Order: sequence, then structure tokens, then C-alpha cells
Amino acid sequence: MRVVAACVCGSDLWPYRGVTPTHHAHRIGHEFVGVVEEVGPEVTTIAPGDFVIAPFYDCDMTCVNCKNGVSTSCLNGGWWGSDDKLGGFADGGQGQKVRVPHADGALVATPEYPSEELIPSLLTLSDVMGTGHHAAVSAGVTEGSTVVVVGDGAVGLCAVLAASRLGASRIIAMSRHESRQELARAFGATDIVATRGDEGVAAVKELLDGIGADCVLEAVGTKESMDQAIRSARPGGMVGYVGVPNGGPELPVRPLFNDNIGVNGGVAPVRNYVEELLQDVWSGAIDPGRVFDLELPLEEAAEAYAAMDERRAIKVLLRP
Amino acid sequence: MRVVAACVCGSDLWPYRGVTPTHHAHRIGHEFVGVVEEVGPEVTTIAPGDFVIAPFYDCDMTCVNCKNGVSTSCLNGGWWGSDDKLGGFADGGQGQKVRVPHADGALVATPEYPSEELIPSLLTLSDVMGTGHHAAVSAGVTEGSTVVVVGDGAVGLCAVLAASRLGASRIIAMSRHESRQELARAFGATDIVATRGDEGVAAVKELLDGIGADCVLEAVGTKESMDQAIRSARPGGMVGYVGVPNGGPELPVRPLFNDNIGVNGGVAPVRNYVEELLQDVWSGAIDPGRVFDLELPLEEAAEAYAAMDERRAIKVLLRP
Repeated sequence: MRVVAACVCGSDLWPYRGVTPTHHAHRIGHEFVGVVEEVGPEVTTIAPGDFVIAPFYDCDMTCVNCKNGVSTSCLNGGWWGSDDKLGGFADGGQGQKVRVPHADGALVATPEYPSEELIPSLLTLSDVMGTGHHAAVSAGVTEGSTVVVVGDGAVGLCAVLAASRLGASRIIAMSRHESRQELARAFGATDIVATRGDEGVAAVKELLDGIGADCVLEAVGTKESMDQAIRSARPGGMVGYVGVPNGGPELPVRPLFNDNIGVNGGVAPVRNYVEELLQDVWSGAIDPGRVFDLELPLEEAAEAYAAMDERRAIKVLLRP
Repeated sequence: MRVVAACVCGSDLWPYRGVTPTHHAHRIGHEFVGVVEEVGPEVTTIAPGDFVIAPFYDCDMTCVNCKNGVSTSCLNGGWWGSDDKLGGFADGGQGQKVRVPHADGALVATPEYPSEELIPSLLTLSDVMGTGHHAAVSAGVTEGSTVVVVGDGAVGLCAVLAASRLGASRIIAMSRHESRQELARAFGATDIVATRGDEGVAAVKELLDGIGADCVLEAVGTKESMDQAIRSARPGGMVGYVGVPNGGPELPVRPLFNDNIGVNGGVAPVRNYVEELLQDVWSGAIDPGRVFDLELPLEEAAEAYAAMDERRAIKVLLRP
């Protein structure tokens, strides 16, 4: 597969910052779209010339976990930039070309070659839009739900869009950054809360009957953000979390138990959502590609990481 | 309200054993049914002579949390054996008579005075049957679900019955006690796993496609039982937990996140379930009262506690 567009993920910043140690140099990048150049003899649904979306992992879509909607737990799947379970090597996505295991399962072809302006939104189906959607689905967002979104990175903003798409009546985005607040509003946020901690919780409750939200979407992964999320939920509410837990914050069972607040989510099985979301991207009903606020050639990947690390950019698109 | 039948709860054993400290002597007991003797001037739906079921807490059923289905988080509710929020004292249920705050909200009258043999099953709607049902609802048990139940106390056994009632196709009860295994089977368990820990998890997975259960109902509340529950769930599965967390075991976020296993539940809002479950008890469709395997006069409450503490009895019914 020839990569047409790739990008840097918030989770790529953990090794970049050294928070997660890198024991040996390896290729990186797991969000990409592109064109199929060649297929193996067993591939039947994907053909050379197809424009395809790759999820941030590979999966066969035939095992019991894939069929249960949890393709991230595929019994035969794996991760980009590492050896795959078929005995080959699946390259990282921040590169020119990638060998894709389980191409029939992992890749989804678009109806035809997309227009240039659709490519950023298609790229978000590789991870951030599917992940935001997973947060919303995990939290049970439905017609009329009240929603709080913790995290204003690309995933948090996509979670706002996902909640809006699923019919939430009230969406409170927690954000301190003006440009992100603006995009959150464009994506469907009805309210912005710029404070955090006790003050943030109080602001959320004041907006929501004094009790908190039906659904809270957590898109950061720190102890503080999870605490914010749990305290923003109403009794009987549900936290849908997709922020990769960093440093393994444990979930405090007692406040969850006392007020029947559930916690659901995890590493988002975005492959299971591609077809559904692709329809809305293709029709123009949603435009999650707006999370990209910087585009650089692949050779300037170092600057892409720096811009995201310093929060000068929400999300950077890379062009090989 | 004159108490006709009360009982001892598994959670009463924590203070009995000294695991939870008792700082000052107080009345105890929170599961009881009986006859209304007298009502206050504002009570409209309950009348003297009614046979009523009391949930294990009082609640008004008019506040936003009660209306959201979480009456255990009632803004005006309280607990038996303590001062209530209306300025009175709500007596413990293991006694002759109880003053019930929010009688219109808290109490549910039966269609008529019940036959003697229905009383144990009606008493379970006060707590254990509603709590088992809450575990099943929280875990999302529905037609065709595969279910594992961790815990073979009265709540665990009622959780088996609840899962069966909701249409689960496979119900694995984890139990090492023959009499409890028998009752689990009578309540709808299709399989029994008598092992625990790694061995128990392996046995469960072997029965369920190698991946674990759609829904796991946790009805103990220890670190070990929660660990057993989480490891028995399939990727994308849900743990419904109702065992009062003892010693506050925290939930391990990483295994939950990696396999998208959700955790939902808490202190069961049984009042919200009384009407629904009462229909099935009244018609004889379910007979949760079978969890009582010992009946004693109230004066022998000490022996009731001892029998449960020593696991000579699953659950003891007390008659004032």
C-alpha cells in the first residue's frame, strides 16, 4: 500500500516525550490511508488501485472477537511497525509504503478515488474519529443524552462530533484553548467549560440539573482526566473512556459503586466502525478532517511531533 | 410498619465480623416486609392494613436521581437504622416495627395480603433479588447472552435467576458448595465451575469459545472476586457488579482498557425494580425465596448471624 496521507497520534507523544521508554529504535505511525499497489494471492476484496483506509492495527475480521465488534482484540491481529502473526513485518504508517497483513479484513476501500478535500476526513477513520465514536458508543450516547467530553485533542473533538451525530441534546466540551473551543462548537458542542478539577465539576453540574451528565467521554488517559470524567457523571451515568491509560491509573471503585457510575471503553475497535462512518464522511454529513490544523511533508515529521508536543497544533497530517 | 419478616444480609456480616468497625452501638437490618399500621397525614398511596415491601433504603421516587432509575442516590433518601433527612429516625429492619420516611416513595404494596408461602420471595425484593437483577441489568444481560456469576451467596444465586429470567442462553455459576450448586441449577444455571483463580478462568473460557462471557455478574465484593469477574469476561464484555466493595479494591484499568471490558453497577436501586419483579413473584414465575434455608424467631438473631457467618446457612429469615 502506498501511503497518501498519514498523521501523528497523541499516543505517539508518549514515546516521543520519553514517558514510555523506547528500548530499541523502531518505525512508528499507525494512522494512514493510501492506494493499494499489489496484493497477495489470497486477497479477494481489495485490488490494486483501490483507495483504502487502514485502521490503527491489523485484524482479520473473521475471528470471534472481530465478529463480536472488538477487532482490536483480534486473535490474529497485530500492530503497525512490528512483526505480524503471519510471519511478516507490518511497517509503521509514517512512511512511504506499508505491507498490510489480513488486507481483506483490515482495509476498507472507498467507493471511488476520493477528492483531495475528503482525504483528511477519511484519514480520521483510521483512528481519531473512530475512537471518538467508540467513546460515545461505550458511554451509551443516544438521542437526547447529556454529554460531557473531557479532552480537547483530536479524539476529544471527534468525540464531540460523534455525540452530536448520535443525537445528544447537550454536549459540554471541557477546553481551555480558544481554537479548540471553536472547533468543538463547530462539531456540535452546546457549552464550553474552561475550568478543571473541583471548579470544572461544579460548572458541569450547574449546567446539568445539579447532578452531572448521562454520558462522559474521556479522551486523555491520565489520572486527573479520569477523575474529572467520573466526577462529571450523574448517578447511574456512564463514562466511555478511550484515552490510553498512561501510568496505569486505577479506577476508584467506591465512588463508582456508590453512585452506580459505569466505566466502559478501551482501545477503540475502529475497524468495526469504518463502513458506518465512511458513509457520513463520503456524503459530507460529517467533516472530522477539520481536526488537522497543520500539514507537512513526511520529511518534516520531526517538526510535526514538535508542533503537537508543544500544543501548537491539534493534529498534523503528513504527506509522503 | 409492623415487620412480618426480615432477614440478615451478607453485608451485615462485615460489621458482625469486625471487618468494618462499629463505632457506636446501633440498630441494624435493612430487608423487611410487613403490614402498615399507621400513616402520616401526607401519605397518599399507602394505607393501614397494606402488606408492603420496603427496599433496603428509603427514597422519595420523585427526585431526579430516582426518576433516572437510581433511587439509591435519592437526593432525600437515607438508610435504615439512622437519622433520616426529614428529621426523624428510621429504625433498623431487624425489629418489630419500623417508622418509614417517604412511605409513598419507598414502599410498594402487594395486590392483596400474600399467602404464607409467598412471603420469603416477596422479602427478597427488599434486596437480594433486586440486587441480583441489577447485576444482570448492569452487565446488559439479554436474550441469548452468555453469563458467568461470581459468588454463590443469596445475591449470586438471585443473579443466576435474574439472568435466566432475562433470557441468557448460558449461565455458568461459580460455586464450590453442593447445596448452592443445586439451587443455582434450579434457578437456571446451565454449568457449574467449582474452581477459582487461574483454574476457574480457564474452565470458564473452555466453556465459552475460549474467550469468556458476554456478561459477568459479580456478587461478592472482594479484590479476588472482582479479579475473577474481570478475567472471566470476553473482550468487549461487561462486568455487572453489586458486591459491596470491601476494603475498596481499585479496578485495574489496563486489562479493562486493553480488551474493552466494561464495569457497571453499584449499590442496587432495588426500589426501581420492585413493580417489575413483583409481577413475576406474584404469578409464581420466579421463586427467589428459595435462597432462605433457615428461619428463626427474631429473638434468635444472634444464631442467625452465626449461621451465616459460618456459612451453615445461605440466608436466614427472621420472624418477629
